[in-house]
Amino acid sequence: MRDVHTALATWMAKLGMSVRVDAAGNLRGVYPARTSQAQASAVRRFYIGSHLDTVPNGGAFDGVLGTVLAIALVELLGGRRFAFAIEVVGFSEEEGVRFGAPFLGSRALAGTFDSALLDRTDEHGRSMREAIRHFGLDPGRIPDAEAPSGALGYLEFHIEQGPVLENLNLPLAVVDVISGQSRAELTFDGVAGHAGTTPMHMRKDALLAAAAWIAEVERLALATPGLVATVGKISVEPGAGNVVPGRATASIDVRHADDQLRTRSVERLARAADEIAAQRGLKMTWAPRLDQASVAMDDSMVAMLDRALERTGAPHHRMSSGAGHDAMVLAAKMPACMLFLRCEGGISHHPAENVGDGDVAAALDAGVAFLDELERAHHA
Amino acid sequence: MRDVHTALATWMAKLGMSVRVDAAGNLRGVYPARTSQAQASAVRRFYIGSHLDTVPNGGAFDGVLGTVLAIALVELLGGRRFAFAIEVVGFSEEEGVRFGAPFLGSRALAGTFDSALLDRTDEHGRSMREAIRHFGLDPGRIPDAEAPSGALGYLEFHIEQGPVLENLNLPLAVVDVISGQSRAELTFDGVAGHAGTTPMHMRKDALLAAAAWIAEVERLALATPGLVATVGKISVEPGAGNVVPGRATASIDVRHADDQLRTRSVERLARAADEIAAQRGLKMTWAPRLDQASVAMDDSMVAMLDRALERTGAPHHRMSSGAGHDAMVLAAKMPACMLFLRCEGGISHHPAENVGDGDVAAALDAGVAFLDELERAHHA
Repeated sequence: MRDVHTALATWMAKLGMSVRVDAAGNLRGVYPARTSQAQASAVRRFYIGSHLDTVPNGGAFDGVLGTVLAIALVELLGGRRFAFAIEVVGFSEEEGVRFGAPFLGSRALAGTFDSALLDRTDEHGRSMREAIRHFGLDPGRIPDAEAPSGALGYLEFHIEQGPVLENLNLPLAVVDVISGQSRAELTFDGVAGHAGTTPMHMRKDALLAAAAWIAEVERLALATPGLVATVGKISVEPGAGNVVPGRATASIDVRHADDQLRTRSVERLARAADEIAAQRGLKMTWAPRLDQASVAMDDSMVAMLDRALERTGAPHHRMSSGAGHDAMVLAAKMPACMLFLRCEGGISHHPAENVGDGDVAAALDAGVAFLDELERAHHA
Repeated sequence: MRDVHTALATWMAKLGMSVRVDAAGNLRGVYPARTSQAQASAVRRFYIGSHLDTVPNGGAFDGVLGTVLAIALVELLGGRRFAFAIEVVGFSEEEGVRFGAPFLGSRALAGTFDSALLDRTDEHGRSMREAIRHFGLDPGRIPDAEAPSGALGYLEFHIEQGPVLENLNLPLAVVDVISGQSRAELTFDGVAGHAGTTPMHMRKDALLAAAAWIAEVERLALATPGLVATVGKISVEPGAGNVVPGRATASIDVRHADDQLRTRSVERLARAADEIAAQRGLKMTWAPRLDQASVAMDDSMVAMLDRALERTGAPHHRMSSGAGHDAMVLAAKMPACMLFLRCEGGISHHPAENVGDGDVAAALDAGVAFLDELERAHHA
């Protein structure tokens, strides 16, 4: 991370940006406004960034592409200034791999960083507080990392991490909402039995119930536009080839841009599990694990991104994000928006992750056009 | 095991039986025939027994009930002799828990004990050869444990280990065949993906394919009288709640008394898996693991058991055994038959395993009547 900071800080300094690393480990570079007056005012600052971390064995684009794009955008301005300063941010710890808590850097900028997080430990038993100190930063100064109230807004470029744009043959999309998310774990309890001596009609096979329910999950999701529902984990007990499963446990992950629709869908899936269990004489237990509301991107920022795409001649398309992003956290503090770049093969969090050069160029063009829109809006 | 041998040997000795432990660890007690002439002839020997081991955390009836019943049957004869000797056998190692190879004792009696088995080791690295020596026996003499050719036959009393007799409200059943068994492992290979960013119609979810196939397994088994088909194991990769499963692996266990029907059923299930994979753009791999033919019990022995039940006034019922038994191994050497006793709640291999006293009494009555039938047949 220190090497990444050094490389990006060097680049930013060459562009006349003043660079620092804040107490939460965010790399921040300020490109000054046109007038020193404007630069002095916290109100006149616009943030562009993304995260610098990714997952183990991930790719070269998740997160860092958005930060590099922000700097490249400043470079593309060729010294041109705006009525507002631009602050480029490379966020720390978006994924939450090390301490099991995501969005650490963006929480600090949004002023929603809970200091209790500092006591969390990594797998080696080192606390977040110690880790920050070891990096040469002062965890006590994290509150100072908060962006001032009245900031102009936040723009994030990010790889889509899904197959939608490639499928639509589009380079870019404006994100209008980050989907809400429900997670739960459910268990079917039946009766284990001998695979050879228990006739089919006398079984209370927990896996058969789970399989019937998984088919129901797929049916509902396919029938509900925009809904994604995933059973990503399943296990059975006792789990021997010659024993009828007495218990099956599965996870469910449900996401939609519309919170009501998501909540209703989860209720329907829980009811379906109940009905399947009742029909088969089994017991079903549903344990909710997460209920996270959707976060809308700022209407006027989204409209500006739409216009920016139109002006650059790029086909414009809106979509929801099924994954969480720093923009979701920043939205609590300032108007936030996101631009997705097409993801080759829909593959992300994998070394094969890729974004095409042409799409990066299109994103840069859109970024310049967006800053023009912002300048115009600011003067209006 | 030594304590069990001592207890049962003492009991058998009191009944005038000559007792020994053979080189395979089988406890064997001979109840002499009416004449010393008959006793001298190996042809005139009838075997009754079952195994003395069970599974860890098992019950008090699996196996040992059949051995104890055989001795109690001799006791019930009150000194009455037949034209044939009766040899009671308490078999060693039917379950195969220690060395992963079942039916060790009965294989020795049937003359099908492969001496290569002696090199197998238990979880502590001790070989079967060493274990037999440590018990005070000579593994080199296992061939001597084989029953002489032309033995009259073999009868085994055994707990049903399933719910059929309880469901029919019957105490006993004559086993006419031990079902054949197929086992396989199959894998669906799809594409892992992000649970939030991969729309439903773009997924190649391996678990959805597995769930659809498991429903097919149930449908076929319910529609095929006597067929049992069990998916007892399933796992998915990567196996995280927020990742679409890219791979699902499941086991399948198929049993039926009719080998052709079983084989055809397995073929249908493999075809169904192929079709489901093809419909969903996934790859399916089917790996056969076991193909064990059914073993018929001896027709004339079965008929004698039928008549014995009739004469004692017990309702007579025939059924197939879905589990393997020593009788299956003995059938290669001599006419074999089995009598099942009702199993409370269908529960076996569990401390709650139980057989009612009345059912044991009915089995003893049937045993005496069976010996009468055998005596009559022998004289005919």
